[in-house]
Amino acid sequence: MINNDIKNLPKFGKLDVEHPLFTNERVYKDIKSCKEREEFESKVLFSIEDAIEKSQLKSGMTISFHHHFRDGDFVLNKVMEVIAKKGIKDLTLAASSLLSVHSPLIEHVKNGVITRIETSGLRGELAEAVSKGLLDIPVVFRSHGGRAYAIKNGDIKIDVAFLGAPSCDSFGNANGYSRDHDNGIICGSLGYAKTDAQYASCVIVLTDNLVPFPNVPAGIFQSDVDYVVKVDAIGDPNGIMSGATRFTKNPKELLIAETTAEVIEQSGVFKDGFSFQMGSGGASLATARFLREKMLKKNIKADFVLGGITGVIVKLHEEGLIKKILDVQSFDLEAAKSLKNNRFHQQMSAYYYASPNNPGTAVNQLDVVILSALEVDVDYNVNVLTGSDGSIRGAIGGHQDTAAGASVSIIVCPLTRGRIASVVDKVNTIVTPGKTVDIVVTDQGVAINPLRTDLIERFKNSNINLTTIENLRDKAMSLVGRGKSIEYTDKVVGIVTYRDGSVIDLIYQVKDQDEDD
Amino acid sequence: MINNDIKNLPKFGKLDVEHPLFTNERVYKDIKSCKEREEFESKVLFSIEDAIEKSQLKSGMTISFHHHFRDGDFVLNKVMEVIAKKGIKDLTLAASSLLSVHSPLIEHVKNGVITRIETSGLRGELAEAVSKGLLDIPVVFRSHGGRAYAIKNGDIKIDVAFLGAPSCDSFGNANGYSRDHDNGIICGSLGYAKTDAQYASCVIVLTDNLVPFPNVPAGIFQSDVDYVVKVDAIGDPNGIMSGATRFTKNPKELLIAETTAEVIEQSGVFKDGFSFQMGSGGASLATARFLREKMLKKNIKADFVLGGITGVIVKLHEEGLIKKILDVQSFDLEAAKSLKNNRFHQQMSAYYYASPNNPGTAVNQLDVVILSALEVDVDYNVNVLTGSDGSIRGAIGGHQDTAAGASVSIIVCPLTRGRIASVVDKVNTIVTPGKTVDIVVTDQGVAINPLRTDLIERFKNSNINLTTIENLRDKAMSLVGRGKSIEYTDKVVGIVTYRDGSVIDLIYQVKDQDEDD
Repeated sequence: MINNDIKNLPKFGKLDVEHPLFTNERVYKDIKSCKEREEFESKVLFSIEDAIEKSQLKSGMTISFHHHFRDGDFVLNKVMEVIAKKGIKDLTLAASSLLSVHSPLIEHVKNGVITRIETSGLRGELAEAVSKGLLDIPVVFRSHGGRAYAIKNGDIKIDVAFLGAPSCDSFGNANGYSRDHDNGIICGSLGYAKTDAQYASCVIVLTDNLVPFPNVPAGIFQSDVDYVVKVDAIGDPNGIMSGATRFTKNPKELLIAETTAEVIEQSGVFKDGFSFQMGSGGASLATARFLREKMLKKNIKADFVLGGITGVIVKLHEEGLIKKILDVQSFDLEAAKSLKNNRFHQQMSAYYYASPNNPGTAVNQLDVVILSALEVDVDYNVNVLTGSDGSIRGAIGGHQDTAAGASVSIIVCPLTRGRIASVVDKVNTIVTPGKTVDIVVTDQGVAINPLRTDLIERFKNSNINLTTIENLRDKAMSLVGRGKSIEYTDKVVGIVTYRDGSVIDLIYQVKDQDEDD
Repeated sequence: MINNDIKNLPKFGKLDVEHPLFTNERVYKDIKSCKEREEFESKVLFSIEDAIEKSQLKSGMTISFHHHFRDGDFVLNKVMEVIAKKGIKDLTLAASSLLSVHSPLIEHVKNGVITRIETSGLRGELAEAVSKGLLDIPVVFRSHGGRAYAIKNGDIKIDVAFLGAPSCDSFGNANGYSRDHDNGIICGSLGYAKTDAQYASCVIVLTDNLVPFPNVPAGIFQSDVDYVVKVDAIGDPNGIMSGATRFTKNPKELLIAETTAEVIEQSGVFKDGFSFQMGSGGASLATARFLREKMLKKNIKADFVLGGITGVIVKLHEEGLIKKILDVQSFDLEAAKSLKNNRFHQQMSAYYYASPNNPGTAVNQLDVVILSALEVDVDYNVNVLTGSDGSIRGAIGGHQDTAAGASVSIIVCPLTRGRIASVVDKVNTIVTPGKTVDIVVTDQGVAINPLRTDLIERFKNSNINLTTIENLRDKAMSLVGRGKSIEYTDKVVGIVTYRDGSVIDLIYQVKDQDEDD
């Protein structure tokens, strides 16, 4: 009988008489107040060195950072400097994205501190250097959803996450704003960081603003945090926030925006309760303005808007035209403040936002997404990662995720930019597969993916200036000519993955022109 | 050189040309609206049978439930009925707690559907039956923090969690209230369920109230949910909520409450910014009232209150006497409504609240906790689990967790209840070890644990009616006499664990009186 065997049950074999509770060992109790405890028993450390020491970070491990501070980020460079000084080598850097401000990484790669990079995008000098073959091992590019999925399923195993936060209490409740003041650093949503905090083996929050426990509401919870490092500064507000949102005066962008709003209106999804996502580019922001007029005129309200959020969306929300906002990153101060003050404007994790393995993923609920493109080709494949010279200068972001999730995905781009065509035979780099792209809106006409016979039927008798993607390509070519084809070496510098981790394209090293000439 | 080996890298061996994105396989896209998607692509199922089928629940697995609906819960019994019908056997039931309403479990144990139970507490007929030896394998009792810790570290591996929710969208964003109305089912915080949702292999939300996506703010996120089952009813509001909070008129309780407020005032932690937790018992609620007067008089405000929350705490918060509330379970309608409407009243998970393995755990930040007791002994050990007849009739709850975490833990109990002494030589069952108990307040005097020399020193010259725990025991004995000692068989029916999973007591089967006589 099992009951008689209780003395032999593995965990519950006998009364634990050796437990400190039943021996003379002192159970520590006194009347320290919470404030005193914060001082003596908190997770707070006062140097990055200490935190790295305690995290047991070793050569060969994987570290992560978020990019909510964008080009105002101080955290990554500061932490990397300390890691480099400690002689730790051969790290994998799994950042949510990397920007121009992160160019000091070049030295860390050269010195062997970092040997692998995984990111959504690369910009600036680092991007140039990577394009020219900085790393032996190609950079792995993932979408925001793909990265979250990889973290969840173990493809990315983060050993130590270093997460900057504009406010944090002594035990790790962190957020992208401060309840105590509106000045200083504010980034709004900590969406990308949330996923890292949940899955990393060791989580270190860096903050310049220690606030009283409990810092609620919080974006990152103390239960996920190991250490809190108080530093003097985590970022530059000017770099973090793109500043006041201004509407474009560019006539091409205004034309594209007006057409896009028309397309949305006639696409079949423009009904009361619809949902959409749009980026922070000029055409996107202007589209919101034209869409607003249509919503007011037809008395149509959106149930929700999601993704990266701007002040333009916030204003629509405050006007009552959008019920709820799901925010994975706040692009400007208006968005960050709204997240702080409005309980129907909520932050969501990257995983919640865009992971491909869950039918509830937020992007799957989108009716319309408006996306930009560096290039789109006649198969509707989109490139947002490499420039016309073949070098890396962009980010996948949520491009793949939203194109796949939304009922109608709309690519907005001018037919040409300067002397460069945006509609081409074949994109340099496939980032978002044509099968998930539905409509391309340019200043010279609108093309609908032939796979979407339903949409073609719907627009048959509309006033939209419909054309084919081949016509758009021809027109672009006639305007600017076929670009000089890019010469590459056989060295792979980047691997473009799809949301599920499969490889959908490779980026090769661009041949150095000077070398050839 | 690693770059040349790219074709042999395990995950990134080659362009995935077989990927559906690059073959003729159709990528499904059309202009279904979100509302249509909710119908066709959601996680919603319309029968518990279906959900169990899809969860792949099999004999021998572990299932979990929360007890936020208390004695109004319909979920557990409904689900168990279906499981039993399907012929699934030998399950471990790992509930956050079990109440009188769950007496149908007796039959499921008798029929072999359930062979193991883990819970914070047992009440009613089920408790009686367990006390009399219903199960072959002893019930494992864990505190709320101990359970969360066990779930996190894998001691409890939940295969399928069945979580009732007063509102849920089609993709699994669930909450303890509805944004659309205040009527019907409302339970406030989903604190215990949050931990289950995060760690269970399969998560099924049961709701009677499907709401539009996105149901934000949410207590449980879609990213953690596998299926949503729409059922007619999940609970009885009258059983879920204990009703309007009434102040006690019991003179013993009022005396204890007044004394407790005095003790807090003089304990050294009663300073501006202090924190506390108190339960929903008569003496606790009355203590809040006396404490309020002292706070107003001395202009002292609490930074936060946490734990199970009542309308009494909400009122103090609304008066400005408490800044923030961390809510693991809402005891009444006032608390649930405040959680819904007030963003400084936030729900927290059981893990956040009380897990023993994280210095940030909320209970560790408490200055004062007020706890009840069935018995306390001369070693300050407390029993809240077994009655004076030796049978099970209570729950560990957060008792161990808060006693260990708070700077000052105060046990409130009348010296005697009817003909039964509350202060005894040795408690029937050790639930909270004396080393973590600081002060015992009775209607006949206050005893301070000799380990707390700091508190004894502080109260030396106070007006508090101080005595020793031995004197209290003697007085109790002189009033009601020594109770008849309980006779037990040698069968273990319950294992009492401490927060860290170690065993601190065993509960034996009570000898049936009729059998003996």
